[in-house]
Amino acid sequence: MTLSALEVNQLKQAPAVDGVLPVIHHRWSPRAFSSREVSNVTLAKVFEAARWAASSYNEQPWRLLVGVRGSETYKKIFETLIGFNQGWAGKAPVLILGVASTKFSHNGTTNGSALYDLGAASSYLTLQAAALGLATHQMAGYSHDAARAAFDIPEDYVFGAVIALGYQGEPADLGHEQMVAQEVAPRERKPLKDFVFSAWDKPADLA
Amino acid sequence: MTLSALEVNQLKQAPAVDGVLPVIHHRWSPRAFSSREVSNVTLAKVFEAARWAASSYNEQPWRLLVGVRGSETYKKIFETLIGFNQGWAGKAPVLILGVASTKFSHNGTTNGSALYDLGAASSYLTLQAAALGLATHQMAGYSHDAARAAFDIPEDYVFGAVIALGYQGEPADLGHEQMVAQEVAPRERKPLKDFVFSAWDKPADLA
Repeated sequence: MTLSALEVNQLKQAPAVDGVLPVIHHRWSPRAFSSREVSNVTLAKVFEAARWAASSYNEQPWRLLVGVRGSETYKKIFETLIGFNQGWAGKAPVLILGVASTKFSHNGTTNGSALYDLGAASSYLTLQAAALGLATHQMAGYSHDAARAAFDIPEDYVFGAVIALGYQGEPADLGHEQMVAQEVAPRERKPLKDFVFSAWDKPADLA
Repeated sequence: MTLSALEVNQLKQAPAVDGVLPVIHHRWSPRAFSSREVSNVTLAKVFEAARWAASSYNEQPWRLLVGVRGSETYKKIFETLIGFNQGWAGKAPVLILGVASTKFSHNGTTNGSALYDLGAASSYLTLQAAALGLATHQMAGYSHDAARAAFDIPEDYVFGAVIALGYQGEPADLGHEQMVAQEVAPRERKPLKDFVFSAWDKPADLA
């Protein structure tokens, strides 16, 4: 028997660490979405969070194309997704395509931080969504070329993720064995020693 | 007369929006750091937050080189900074260099999300730092080549920011007119209509 959404959320909760923001341990990336719509007031809060991310020269290079189910924008974003993602993301009430300008507006030179800063803004967005009881799932699996063509996105913009956003649904409703298995599996991350170094491949001593 | 750190923090606070995570409106990027050290316990919490960021295929491509002032690692990171950043960042007790693997570990193919995911992990780190009363300032202004050479970083890793981390200091102590002016200026961001679209350059209707 498949775990319920409620049971899964307990399972996905990372172990609390005193002083660490609870929303960071609480956020995860479901694929099961309910049909419940997201209000514009709530959506605006999610974008408000993205707005305040840091960026190189405060360029704020991110541009977010947002499609609400039933709209032409939603349809266009959905059609860029690879088949596997189309298999679940169409239930999410909102799809967001994140892109970033690779040219600084103050002098037209290349902004090498564009994709990095877009990643930051998107993570503010997903943390804020989690804080509002929403679920998000970021996808790299879509066609950049198709997205560029569908929205006439200029050549000097790079692509981040498509973000599915909505309220969480029941894992069993995914109706796809691999997806259900991933949906109810515990979250896993590397220990600090595997990515916090004092020299290359030498773990930092934080004890 | 220059504003104090306390006065500046009031000024930098973005207007509260009901339901938006306070830490997102509270975090900003000072250049003035105090000499107060950061404990390993606190540092570990900051990295714990980065650990839980989302990433493509859960690759967690980020690697963070952390130098505490006085260490060889700190010295190496500091020496990669451009002159302008050396002018203030040397007071920060911790410097962190973020890089990311562009190869998926499960099959060796290119991970086009590496820089994006590093941006996400770094923003988790900076938000968590803010939640703990720490200040962070991310810098794109450093030499990737010098950093690669100093730490023997493999060619298939890309570079994010160097993050200065510590407790905030007094703006007047920066002793540099332009830096002081930026330190006490209000934070500015684009309105939602400038980056949340339903079509290219068509603002989404969130009213």
